[in-house]
Amino acid sequence: MKIAIVGSGAVGGYYGARLARAGEDVHFLLRSDYAAVRDHGWRITNHEGPWRLHPVNAHERPETIGPCGLVIIAAKATANPALPPLVRPLLGPATLVLTLQNGLGNVEFHAAYCGAERLLGGVCFVCINRVAPGVIEKYIPGSIRLGEMHGPARDRTRDLAARFSRAGLDCQAVDSLPEILWRKLIWNIPFNGLTIAAGGVTTDIVLARPPLLELTRQLMREVQAGAAAHGIAIPDAFLQKQIDVTLPMGPYKPSSLVDYLAGREIEVEAIWGEPARRARAAGTPLPRLETLHLLLAGLAHARTPSASG
Amino acid sequence: MKIAIVGSGAVGGYYGARLARAGEDVHFLLRSDYAAVRDHGWRITNHEGPWRLHPVNAHERPETIGPCGLVIIAAKATANPALPPLVRPLLGPATLVLTLQNGLGNVEFHAAYCGAERLLGGVCFVCINRVAPGVIEKYIPGSIRLGEMHGPARDRTRDLAARFSRAGLDCQAVDSLPEILWRKLIWNIPFNGLTIAAGGVTTDIVLARPPLLELTRQLMREVQAGAAAHGIAIPDAFLQKQIDVTLPMGPYKPSSLVDYLAGREIEVEAIWGEPARRARAAGTPLPRLETLHLLLAGLAHARTPSASG
Repeated sequence: MKIAIVGSGAVGGYYGARLARAGEDVHFLLRSDYAAVRDHGWRITNHEGPWRLHPVNAHERPETIGPCGLVIIAAKATANPALPPLVRPLLGPATLVLTLQNGLGNVEFHAAYCGAERLLGGVCFVCINRVAPGVIEKYIPGSIRLGEMHGPARDRTRDLAARFSRAGLDCQAVDSLPEILWRKLIWNIPFNGLTIAAGGVTTDIVLARPPLLELTRQLMREVQAGAAAHGIAIPDAFLQKQIDVTLPMGPYKPSSLVDYLAGREIEVEAIWGEPARRARAAGTPLPRLETLHLLLAGLAHARTPSASG
Repeated sequence: MKIAIVGSGAVGGYYGARLARAGEDVHFLLRSDYAAVRDHGWRITNHEGPWRLHPVNAHERPETIGPCGLVIIAAKATANPALPPLVRPLLGPATLVLTLQNGLGNVEFHAAYCGAERLLGGVCFVCINRVAPGVIEKYIPGSIRLGEMHGPARDRTRDLAARFSRAGLDCQAVDSLPEILWRKLIWNIPFNGLTIAAGGVTTDIVLARPPLLELTRQLMREVQAGAAAHGIAIPDAFLQKQIDVTLPMGPYKPSSLVDYLAGREIEVEAIWGEPARRARAAGTPLPRLETLHLLLAGLAHARTPSASG
């Protein structure tokens, strides 16, 4: 299958490289990492040992890729305004568009110019960082869940999940995309947020300091309530599990903290703003999340917006 | 009147120096600034022009001061656990104890070992910083309000306010100490907190960034609600006035930010924790304040507690 990866940072680079290694016809649309990936390929530092994908179909412009069977959007949500002209040349009559972006509002954004019928969303439960041009560190096996923008999984959703699975990835189609998006937020909202708001600390510090751990739990319960306001039941055990899986990750830097420390724009609206607004609109204001949102928006305010891949 | 100043930082140093200049018999209990103040006196950089108090009755131990008519406690609330042995030698049968400390819980703390009958509290609406040993910068005229720990102003409260007034200070006795303490928190909770939580910025930045200004207003409304839960009505106009008076202060560093940037412990429990707990106990949880409290407690957690004078 001809697959384009738009936003070839850590997530796009890693999953694209896995799919290419499994024999898919993967094309990477690159910007800052173009030369490094073209010349040296993708280099992955994996918990299973390092490996490399080389040569790579590296592109600077979408026109040299052309229409694909699948477009995977893995750019930061902050880059969305710049994406329509990059994605449109990749679309044919039957092209599927899968966004693996964090937070809420991404499928709706891309549906507006791609058409909702093409749109799928996915969530990567993984710890993965781009540490240098073309170099990706991955820490835990992780998993992917895919769902339709509207309605339950279809044959095409399951076919896509099977394709990821054949590449050796833990991937399943699910019947509710909103559910997996809200579940991911149970982790992202506290950990991506508090590591920044507490002065730029790693996740182990958030877990080790009792006030921050308490605030983590309170935020998780708010996100759980926000999901419930949308008819999505997330059990208490899932909240505790997010803490349990984070403990062995040690001094981990969530992607937003990596961006923040590098002076890049963070996904304030996708991860904190949009969930807060949707919960309020559904009659369940989440004041701790709203506070964290305004604080992060205030931190980010002075920074120059820059799309990050 | 023989007056002891315990906690001779910016507030204690400035008001003590003003009272001494007006002819009161003021004795300063000093620690880190002892040698500087003994040798060079208090140097005040005032909006009215610089002046100096020299010589000064500087003491290292309370025993060399002995019982006073009035003990003014102007130490940081974080220093409270260290104060009883410093205050006790200053007490005679009729000694009044006036705490000018920020936040809630201070009169109760000192009443526990001094006796509630002696206790008065006061609030300084002022911008004042200790910038070097024995050197104090003061930015606006400011004012002081004094009240009894229990009940309305008495003759002794008014006498004390008159004594401050004779020293050229804008000082009045009030009939409700809790009311002036909650009013001061309308300013301290957002500005002392957000300048730290937003990464160490000055008050002008908090006012200039729309998300931080919005969070400032939300926090002010929560504090207003917390006061209301204690039967204290603070009008909306007072909230707006706090923003209006802060604008011309420019790049001001609230005392908590100064402490934070200097690596000193901040008054997390007096300014944020105790108001949050009291509001919750009164049936009015303040979730934004609780969030800010946990965040600041998390920031401060790793710091070594150190009493600051």
